[in-house]
Amino acid sequence: MTRWKLIIEYDGRPFSGWQSQDHAPSVQQAIEEALYKFCQQTLRVHVAGRTDAGVHARGQVAHFDLDYGTRPLAPSDLCKALNALLRPLPIAILEATPVSEDFHARFSAKMKHYQYRILNRSAPPTTEEGLVWHVRRPLNEQAMDLAAKHLLGRHDFSTFRDSQCQAKSPVRSLDRFDVSRRDETILFDVEGRSFLHHQVRNMVGTLVLIGKGKWNQDDLCTALESKDRRRGGMTAPAGGLTLVRILY
Amino acid sequence: MTRWKLIIEYDGRPFSGWQSQDHAPSVQQAIEEALYKFCQQTLRVHVAGRTDAGVHARGQVAHFDLDYGTRPLAPSDLCKALNALLRPLPIAILEATPVSEDFHARFSAKMKHYQYRILNRSAPPTTEEGLVWHVRRPLNEQAMDLAAKHLLGRHDFSTFRDSQCQAKSPVRSLDRFDVSRRDETILFDVEGRSFLHHQVRNMVGTLVLIGKGKWNQDDLCTALESKDRRRGGMTAPAGGLTLVRILY
Repeated sequence: MTRWKLIIEYDGRPFSGWQSQDHAPSVQQAIEEALYKFCQQTLRVHVAGRTDAGVHARGQVAHFDLDYGTRPLAPSDLCKALNALLRPLPIAILEATPVSEDFHARFSAKMKHYQYRILNRSAPPTTEEGLVWHVRRPLNEQAMDLAAKHLLGRHDFSTFRDSQCQAKSPVRSLDRFDVSRRDETILFDVEGRSFLHHQVRNMVGTLVLIGKGKWNQDDLCTALESKDRRRGGMTAPAGGLTLVRILY
Repeated sequence: MTRWKLIIEYDGRPFSGWQSQDHAPSVQQAIEEALYKFCQQTLRVHVAGRTDAGVHARGQVAHFDLDYGTRPLAPSDLCKALNALLRPLPIAILEATPVSEDFHARFSAKMKHYQYRILNRSAPPTTEEGLVWHVRRPLNEQAMDLAAKHLLGRHDFSTFRDSQCQAKSPVRSLDRFDVSRRDETILFDVEGRSFLHHQVRNMVGTLVLIGKGKWNQDDLCTALESKDRRRGGMTAPAGGLTLVRILY
């Protein structure tokens, strides 16, 4: 039996998210079906971050246990086979690596990096439709970057926690929150060990109030301290969010 | 009567190209239909570069003449109206500007910048499917960049000219041809006043032979001097090509 770690990229647009749902195919189901075609075994794939419907990944991580008999299995062969079996779905296995049995995609994760992207211009997106949040009104990225720093460190993030969130505690530690502009795109880079449900999207939706000049820095601190979701801004749309990387 | 210049971005994937074809909708047709809905006039839109099916644009330019009566028409209003009327097609009007009557999108163009993108990794593309050419085998971008410099200047480009090309002369001047890598993506940046049909894609398809180590620098020079399309490499797929900018 070998435990395999996969690094996975996907376009979230056609999927109900990582986890299986009734109404649309999921990334998990697609990968488990590809594995079944590969080895005729029903394997359970364990993921690091269960992304929501429409959320993308460049560096999602998952693991599974495979008993491949006595034949050696080259990582690059597993990668190529899975990629071939996943076609034409927009899911790519970037790496497959044998790992020790105490590795767990979710519980061994030390840090997750999410990136949220806003297309900030009057004209709508074309090639990036569903990959960015389109915000027409000019946003002040410096003000948002400054405000984002107030969220760094250990806080009760109830203001940015979805009502469906099942985490035991609303306390999380944020290690990085940078807001920067690259031409017409505004990038929000967020790092932490773990996040509450919708936390990144709720923080971005709130920072946009500052970017538009509707809120000032104090308004954000007051909202955070209120520990009340109703005091935060809107949930930014799923399409702008990408799970970039997970550190172990 | 006012002549209007448009700067246009589009995702080429769903289109038969700029120009109308029987089998698929064209960008030209979509814009002319949006203009008709806007002003109830059948206007002809003249374009700078007639991109092929599947080719994208970030800075396509077109012009048309509009008699809007005595009412003033604000450029931003024209832009917003056209963008609203073009939904949900992936075409965006980035700018609309009144220009003098001697401006011609095609004939006044001084320089065009095209960018070709290759995703150079083993795993297939996901969010960029149809926006890049996927080349699995590692490419040497420095060798390609060096080779590209042999194509700079004024040459008979028959080796890179499609058999359907209707230009009178196969002689063109190339002012820039840079090949660079950004992570897994290789960028080919090409600038010149005008290009032969498929010239950029044929040059890229040929440089890839050098990137793979199948050809050396001399092979490229020999191919160029042969003025024979059969001596050049393959035509790179349309999806990797974007018309980035046009200078006037």
